[in-house]
Amino acid sequence: MHPFATGPRDRVDALGEGGLIAAIRRWLGNTCPPAPAGIGDDCAVLPPARHRQLLTVDPVILGRHFDAAVPPAAVGAKLLKRNLSDIAAMGGRPRAAVVSLGLDRSTRVRWLREFHRGLATTARRHGVALVGGDVAEVPGALIATLTLLGETDGTRVLTRQGARAGDWIAVTGRLGGSLASGHHHRFTPRLAEGRWLARRPEIRAMMDVSDGLAKDLFALTPPGTRAALDLTAVPRRRGCTVAAALSDGEDYELLCAISARANLAALQEAWRRRFPTLPLTVIGRFVRNPGGQTAPAALPASGYEHLRPAP
Amino acid sequence: MHPFATGPRDRVDALGEGGLIAAIRRWLGNTCPPAPAGIGDDCAVLPPARHRQLLTVDPVILGRHFDAAVPPAAVGAKLLKRNLSDIAAMGGRPRAAVVSLGLDRSTRVRWLREFHRGLATTARRHGVALVGGDVAEVPGALIATLTLLGETDGTRVLTRQGARAGDWIAVTGRLGGSLASGHHHRFTPRLAEGRWLARRPEIRAMMDVSDGLAKDLFALTPPGTRAALDLTAVPRRRGCTVAAALSDGEDYELLCAISARANLAALQEAWRRRFPTLPLTVIGRFVRNPGGQTAPAALPASGYEHLRPAP
Repeated sequence: MHPFATGPRDRVDALGEGGLIAAIRRWLGNTCPPAPAGIGDDCAVLPPARHRQLLTVDPVILGRHFDAAVPPAAVGAKLLKRNLSDIAAMGGRPRAAVVSLGLDRSTRVRWLREFHRGLATTARRHGVALVGGDVAEVPGALIATLTLLGETDGTRVLTRQGARAGDWIAVTGRLGGSLASGHHHRFTPRLAEGRWLARRPEIRAMMDVSDGLAKDLFALTPPGTRAALDLTAVPRRRGCTVAAALSDGEDYELLCAISARANLAALQEAWRRRFPTLPLTVIGRFVRNPGGQTAPAALPASGYEHLRPAP
Repeated sequence: MHPFATGPRDRVDALGEGGLIAAIRRWLGNTCPPAPAGIGDDCAVLPPARHRQLLTVDPVILGRHFDAAVPPAAVGAKLLKRNLSDIAAMGGRPRAAVVSLGLDRSTRVRWLREFHRGLATTARRHGVALVGGDVAEVPGALIATLTLLGETDGTRVLTRQGARAGDWIAVTGRLGGSLASGHHHRFTPRLAEGRWLARRPEIRAMMDVSDGLAKDLFALTPPGTRAALDLTAVPRRRGCTVAAALSDGEDYELLCAISARANLAALQEAWRRRFPTLPLTVIGRFVRNPGGQTAPAALPASGYEHLRPAP
């Protein structure tokens, strides 16, 4: 379904702002608590937070993160899941989200309904309250921006910093071909996996793979080292080349550094008992690179880069 | 300055995503703490919160909330101040914000620099940490969406609910003519005033006036009552008609309900001692309206409505 109506029927401007907000509350159902805990006041009021909190924001944009071929419910799910993946990458739990919509006045009400139902289903699954938002007109565009507030479980927050020379590099799941396979909207954010890894002391640093391993790995590579990868070990989605696995992006898998002194076999065995259907694959190590650049070895300098000039 | 470059120079796509994010960190200076407290990890990590928290989101959109005539630093300031006004409306304090940018690839780097400097100056003034965000391309558009996290001071949160029949209606400052006067980007969010009002037990409900008094007052009007206004008492900006004061919008003043049993003179005297240059004006009361609609009396049904069909 294309999000914009071609005829005069089913257009959002017939609802108006007040009508759209009332409809959104209906579509979100019990994932949107009554005001002031949810939609309907100047701010949403949230309970105090005992532990450190996590805050992240990511949009979905028509023509960039989805098109008319992606079911609107999957777009709504993707919007939340992109942000859930960021909470997972630090070992946290999601709590509450707000959504800002920028849309053309010809946007189909039916598209928006399915979008919000997909968003609500995903929110329910992960215990996220949808507590507020904003709607505004942006001619010719359809953009939904979600900000997600999460919390740690009181133990460790795993950041991108902390890897050292000698540490192993590991990744969950399989990489590449996200767009062609539909993984970019069907993926499962690795929340349970992220919390499990954050509780293991041998995991030193973590992030999610969203712009492609070749680009994202730079952020985990400690100064004075380079990432030496075994390219044959990189877990690939069926039919993908190594190059695709390294640079396609939108994998939403977890990438982590494991202490050089860790008992890898014991870690892998514990992982398999807890997550029997999801691989955790060691793909290389950070090795000393005196005088060299902090750069992954044997990696093309690719990965998805926003805002590059057209070739 | 128009935000989009007409020639090949000073375009954001020459920086690329990585270059733009590095520049944003420079422009934000000390308002952006080092990662993971600020930009640079999957999420921003924030300290625990002892009190109830407030969450709000509002964008600024080219052609809707600003145009080329508004200095870019004022656009950045407005983006934060719109959200600060929502925190003020509940009597809270702002803490941390994330910003999502959607922009055409021809956006001027100089425009973005001034925008972020204006944002940072306002953040510094109000003690807001700018802790993260996202950048993505939206052809032909320029949208910045800010989500603001705040906290109450441990006492009361003033919501839109709570007014009763007989309560007085009061408003801070002067209304109308926001666009023509430049008030829509020069306004001061009423944070100190909001906290002061939230500590006064005679204030029963509060909100900010952003879509115009005539529209916003509905949200404060308790069931079974109507708002009876003294239209001659509505404080107007110089040169504004009553109709303009009622419906122009973007006033960012506080509107509150004062208990019918309050000592109005004592409240006003205390207000004048604390805020000598800002009026707090009683403009009417909520009166019983048995069987009638919950609607303001003597008010045109106007105020700014987003997403209405073009006339």
